Amino acid sequence: MITIRDVARQAGVSVATVSRVLNHSSAVTPETRESVQQAVAQLGYRPNANAQALATQVSDTIGVVVMDVSDPFFGALVKAVDNVAQQVSKHTLITNSWHQEEKERHAIEVLIRQRCNALIVHAKTLSDAELAEFMDQVPGMVLINRVVPGYAHRCVCLDNISGALSATRMLLQQGHQRIGFLGSSHIIEDNAQRREGWRQAMHEHQLTPPEAWVAHGEPDMQGGEAAMVELLGRNLHLTAIFAYNDSMAAGALTALKDNGIQVPQHCSVIGFDDIPISRYTDPQLTTVRYPIVSMAKLATELALKGAAGELDPNAQHCFMPTLVRRHSVAARQNVEPVTNPSESSM
Amino acid sequence: MITIRDVARQAGVSVATVSRVLNHSSAVTPETRESVQQAVAQLGYRPNANAQALATQVSDTIGVVVMDVSDPFFGALVKAVDNVAQQVSKHTLITNSWHQEEKERHAIEVLIRQRCNALIVHAKTLSDAELAEFMDQVPGMVLINRVVPGYAHRCVCLDNISGALSATRMLLQQGHQRIGFLGSSHIIEDNAQRREGWRQAMHEHQLTPPEAWVAHGEPDMQGGEAAMVELLGRNLHLTAIFAYNDSMAAGALTALKDNGIQVPQHCSVIGFDDIPISRYTDPQLTTVRYPIVSMAKLATELALKGAAGELDPNAQHCFMPTLVRRHSVAARQNVEPVTNPSESSM
Repeated sequence: MITIRDVARQAGVSVATVSRVLNHSSAVTPETRESVQQAVAQLGYRPNANAQALATQVSDTIGVVVMDVSDPFFGALVKAVDNVAQQVSKHTLITNSWHQEEKERHAIEVLIRQRCNALIVHAKTLSDAELAEFMDQVPGMVLINRVVPGYAHRCVCLDNISGALSATRMLLQQGHQRIGFLGSSHIIEDNAQRREGWRQAMHEHQLTPPEAWVAHGEPDMQGGEAAMVELLGRNLHLTAIFAYNDSMAAGALTALKDNGIQVPQHCSVIGFDDIPISRYTDPQLTTVRYPIVSMAKLATELALKGAAGELDPNAQHCFMPTLVRRHSVAARQNVEPVTNPSESSM
Repeated sequence: MITIRDVARQAGVSVATVSRVLNHSSAVTPETRESVQQAVAQLGYRPNANAQALATQVSDTIGVVVMDVSDPFFGALVKAVDNVAQQVSKHTLITNSWHQEEKERHAIEVLIRQRCNALIVHAKTLSDAELAEFMDQVPGMVLINRVVPGYAHRCVCLDNISGALSATRMLLQQGHQRIGFLGSSHIIEDNAQRREGWRQAMHEHQLTPPEAWVAHGEPDMQGGEAAMVELLGRNLHLTAIFAYNDSMAAGALTALKDNGIQVPQHCSVIGFDDIPISRYTDPQLTTVRYPIVSMAKLATELALKGAAGELDPNAQHCFMPTLVRRHSVAARQNVEPVTNPSESSM
């Protein structure tokens, strides 16, 4: 590999001079700059990002930590960050944390060690204290989908409980009372909050859903399918389902169809997030919109401002979810509820 | 920010000694190592990845370049790479190239400059010569879904033409003759190859599909929906559709349903890739399996071997696609073909 020493030799200058040229220092004559640039071109020398970052203490990269980029929700988040990054001619480095504490910590550390000057982090397993420590160290670090007390101006979040309240109230208004919840099997506050919103809305109607109306699965289509099959097996006469997210709702649609239960005629289904797939299920999914693209865009802008020391310490960034009415919810009919064909009792 | 100088001062040793400890050099006494480690812990010093990479000339990261991680195909690819990386305790840094030449080049350069010692690259816009140059420079760089002549042992690819032949032959065997092609609007060899396989299979049956039987869109659900609407508008009496990928096929299903055309009774649809969503469409999608998880796993293993100088120069890594039969293809019926309700002629 061609080194900076080779360039210095070819240009007839010292390594320090080459370094000054590469780092755009002003303390170089135009002639020297020219001869170094010629040597760089002739030898095909590629400046080392590590050396440049050491010299300048910043890098031209924006870092993003998400749980799993292959999840459509996080895919949309990352794409929104990258769009902003491109506008300011920065590169985006993405890492997965797999919703595991050790990996979440590592992912952040890797990006800090790469001297990313702006970081957008989706972290759900680390403590507030540990995240605060990271944020103290990196002024351009912003959290998305989480609020750490004292750092609200660097946190972009969504009111999950409100979203779940809206979704469940909509089902209640359509005459449903036996409303099940398909939850995520991950220990994550979003799930607790969405479940709490469902519980509160039921409570407003003097309903106390039993534990049996809740089933859990991985927060993807397969997990939603499995959890719905589990609920069906319990033979609960449910007439509506509120799912943790759209992927689980899409899986539930498949499980219902496979069991001869028509949506929305015999069972209503509502999701959460409004990822693109929700417009392509059959029927199209009624859901709660999580404005992840707007939120990720804002988070990236805040991170860049933070890196430049320009953040407003009094700002708050909590978004509100909204209902998206499509075709998977209908009024409760007075016909047979959702049961197994071989139903006996309850 | 705490620097290596602060650590040196606290430990009462030179900066060079701290550096030797941090880079696990053996030329340090146990006592010195101990006191440096204490100073690091007391000050909360975080070694700089750039400095470490400069000292050792390698990093502990595997780099991945894909077109767009939010596309489910690339999401699966990245996830497979990350799984291998985790097994060998490495981090994965992911970058998007957006299928643009300048960004593809930049993405590779950013990861090289980060001194990634293993690189898995999906690149479709750069020339063979430019990729060869990158691969000469980085022994741990492997291409996925592309073959550069002379570097076949570092390329993991799929026989796209065979996959398209199988898909189209299956439709022909079911009695279909008027088979349309939904292509990607990206200029990408995969699209040309899949279209060529479709053309060849038609030719085997003495059929020459006219240009009008092809419509293009973005390679996602929305693009597939739009392209299918375009084909329907041309009123071509098509009885089957071969789509560039599953996302486009899923979009086509929605367009067909919206126009009252039943799948597979009135129109068969076959996709390509076998991404998870293909099991959750209605009907479940018959498709051609692209073994991207196995391929990405192999590519990562090859990249790690390449970085260690252990590659077999005579190996080849071309995978074969296989048919996955689900429920979106049926025999051609002698009833009305796919047309608009207000059909007039053609």
